[in-house]
Amino acid sequence: MDIREALYTTRAMRRVTPDAIPEDVQMRVLDAAIRAPSGGNGQSWRFMLVDDIEQRAKLGDLYRECIDVLWATVYADRVESAGANDDPASVEFRRIINSVNWAQENFATYPLLLFAFDRGDGSGGSIYPAVWSAMLQARADGVGSSLTTVLNFKNEETFEVLGVPADKGWKMSCCVPMGYPTGKWGVAKRKPAHWVSYRNTWGTPVGFEIDEPLWP
Amino acid sequence: MDIREALYTTRAMRRVTPDAIPEDVQMRVLDAAIRAPSGGNGQSWRFMLVDDIEQRAKLGDLYRECIDVLWATVYADRVESAGANDDPASVEFRRIINSVNWAQENFATYPLLLFAFDRGDGSGGSIYPAVWSAMLQARADGVGSSLTTVLNFKNEETFEVLGVPADKGWKMSCCVPMGYPTGKWGVAKRKPAHWVSYRNTWGTPVGFEIDEPLWP
Repeated sequence: MDIREALYTTRAMRRVTPDAIPEDVQMRVLDAAIRAPSGGNGQSWRFMLVDDIEQRAKLGDLYRECIDVLWATVYADRVESAGANDDPASVEFRRIINSVNWAQENFATYPLLLFAFDRGDGSGGSIYPAVWSAMLQARADGVGSSLTTVLNFKNEETFEVLGVPADKGWKMSCCVPMGYPTGKWGVAKRKPAHWVSYRNTWGTPVGFEIDEPLWP
Repeated sequence: MDIREALYTTRAMRRVTPDAIPEDVQMRVLDAAIRAPSGGNGQSWRFMLVDDIEQRAKLGDLYRECIDVLWATVYADRVESAGANDDPASVEFRRIINSVNWAQENFATYPLLLFAFDRGDGSGGSIYPAVWSAMLQARADGVGSSLTTVLNFKNEETFEVLGVPADKGWKMSCCVPMGYPTGKWGVAKRKPAHWVSYRNTWGTPVGFEIDEPLWP
């Protein structure tokens, strides 16, 4: 797959089938992840693949609680606003709510969960390139994924399920549920680059406009 | 370019020429960045391209001071250890020191700096996928890059140079100096995936071994 197709069509894919992901795909995903750069080439990361049915059930219970917390706290205003309006942002957010609710009901059926842990990386700049590489490689193999940090609402319980030592400084960066999509790949709609980009100083136009995606 | 070539060969490229990066490449880089997913599709990001010669000179001065701080603080132990040993990790770290020292001396000659800012993203999981997409797209266009967070040592001064409002909640995620490499692209050596990966519980082998990179 061309790099540009991967960059443009790897979007959050939450609705997937329970079909197992073959070992050779799993290997490519992890081997792509560890090629990413990290600060001082520290590679202070651990990855965990979860496919055990009991582990997934336990994590599914925790995920369900975490999503309830998410809607009730971080996104409370957006949920309320999205329910009461029909502007494009509200319509889009309702779409996300539906998608996440699907994940909430079906979490235990994801055939594979990829967890990433990091240590001593305050910014996230030394772990998320690796995570995103894993997701891009998965995409190239036809596997959809999404990145979630919500299990941090139940960090202690998740560490207990996964057996992560609590005293070694490891931080759970995210969980990436994976599977073969039920829907189609497509280019996600975003605010155009020139709306969110400047040149040389804050507020100065970047100097070009990109009204349509540059791919395909 | 194939996605796998990009994922395997996009490594920190600090030694670059001062040749300008054409506008169409800049457009592809930013348009790739904004396609990345972000939490709740929030897209709470700003990007800034810096190519003005005076701005680069000012930032080069700040970068020089920040690298001095970096060696004297975060990496003090590794610098000392690398100077006194000849094990592979020390040799590798001396290579990084030399590369960063090159960047320190030549920062103002980078033809293009890409800054990324985010707001309300504690983990970094909503900005670094976009940054890494920018770097991968740059790679596909033959442009090398590296990701640095060290300017945060002089955050206030950097914000002043760039005119970033201090009171709007924006956080500087990183700076990505870009340019055409003087050296060659290659697959970076990393600790193998199975050394840093588990299955189902912490410490349980992932179930396969990957002794050589799976690409090319």
